[in-house]
Amino acid sequence: MPDLGDVEALGFDVFGTVVDWRGGVAREAEAVLARHGVRLDWPAFADAWRARYQPAMEAVRSGRRPFVPLDVLHRENLEAVLAELGVAGPDETTLAELNLAWHRLDPWPDVLPGLARLKRRFVLVTLSNGNVRLMIDMARRAGLPWDAILGAEPTRAYKPAPEAYLRTAAMLGTTPERVMLVAAHNDDLAAARAAGLRTGFVPRPTEHGPGQTRDLTPEQDWDVVAADFEDLAARLGC
Amino acid sequence: MPDLGDVEALGFDVFGTVVDWRGGVAREAEAVLARHGVRLDWPAFADAWRARYQPAMEAVRSGRRPFVPLDVLHRENLEAVLAELGVAGPDETTLAELNLAWHRLDPWPDVLPGLARLKRRFVLVTLSNGNVRLMIDMARRAGLPWDAILGAEPTRAYKPAPEAYLRTAAMLGTTPERVMLVAAHNDDLAAARAAGLRTGFVPRPTEHGPGQTRDLTPEQDWDVVAADFEDLAARLGC
Repeated sequence: MPDLGDVEALGFDVFGTVVDWRGGVAREAEAVLARHGVRLDWPAFADAWRARYQPAMEAVRSGRRPFVPLDVLHRENLEAVLAELGVAGPDETTLAELNLAWHRLDPWPDVLPGLARLKRRFVLVTLSNGNVRLMIDMARRAGLPWDAILGAEPTRAYKPAPEAYLRTAAMLGTTPERVMLVAAHNDDLAAARAAGLRTGFVPRPTEHGPGQTRDLTPEQDWDVVAADFEDLAARLGC
Repeated sequence: MPDLGDVEALGFDVFGTVVDWRGGVAREAEAVLARHGVRLDWPAFADAWRARYQPAMEAVRSGRRPFVPLDVLHRENLEAVLAELGVAGPDETTLAELNLAWHRLDPWPDVLPGLARLKRRFVLVTLSNGNVRLMIDMARRAGLPWDAILGAEPTRAYKPAPEAYLRTAAMLGTTPERVMLVAAHNDDLAAARAAGLRTGFVPRPTEHGPGQTRDLTPEQDWDVVAADFEDLAARLGC
């Protein structure tokens, strides 16, 4: 393991790494749409909504459209997936409420105790594609102790674009090698490493449900590999 | 008083409003420079350093130079003020340490209990010209419970440029009238009001020392005028 003694800050991927988006979106969507008589396979609905996430961000990354916050992309994707599933009728108020499902996701059980330990030694920030208000609402509801909300919206770049990592490090007033991305996704870590950041892998083997096949194991020699956030704290000396 | 029931978030000016920059910079400068045999009127040194603050930001606001974080301006101003005072000799390490004085300022006594009450009902963010790392370090040291660090660096605009207020509201996912600037400075509040924000005035009559003559009273009919942050919490129903 390389010497990590000069790492000052940990930047966290959030969807999947910190919170269970699939379970949370399924729960919130059912709570909102069942009132309107809609019956769906709710985890499959969450998957379908999430499937439109990368293509929507790619339109921004490629320069085909200017930066817009993730809430805007989520809303467009919501309307598309409802149309795809033949769900008609939700009014504007319902759609707006449903779009807030992503603001109301629960952390995995190890997250709060792990972050409490890590916070003693490291600056903790979000390095997520989620927009600022989404991250604020999620953190207030769940008690996530972020020192700042960085990542996509403040840097106006969606991961894995290098600017998302590099501008986050710049806002932390330090160099990329003094920042570690913590993520459950090998592709995110690969992009962070290419930008010069340190890398910490924490697998989330049920992020995509019981049949998950990807991101079960580290695909590179990441600087740290930990079973969960408490194990990460232990491995980083907290 | 106008109906403030739709205010979702409070954005705080920090230097002067939340923390005592004059006392803190004087204390930190003495601690660092006295080791090098420097003797100065420390509060006057803090005043001289701070006097270069607005002109330095004006170079950015006017477009004469691209945006740089406040730590960079503070460092340039530090070297200029030391030269002005005939203080020679501090090495790079000393200058870097001294520049962190602004990261180590103490809140006024009412701030922590006031913010704890306000946080139950409102999203609390910095709307300061301080850069992200400065605000993070200050908050960690002092226990300031910000939900996010917004203001100059994420918006790449120095107050009182309207973009600093408007982009902060946009990152909060809301409209300017649902955000209130809390500040001890009438000119900051005037610019926030011109941008459409609500305004809360909390005087800090010793910010500039015992002989302060400005910002002792509200110069407009600000939406809220409070004696301190606990009074602000009470007036906002917290």
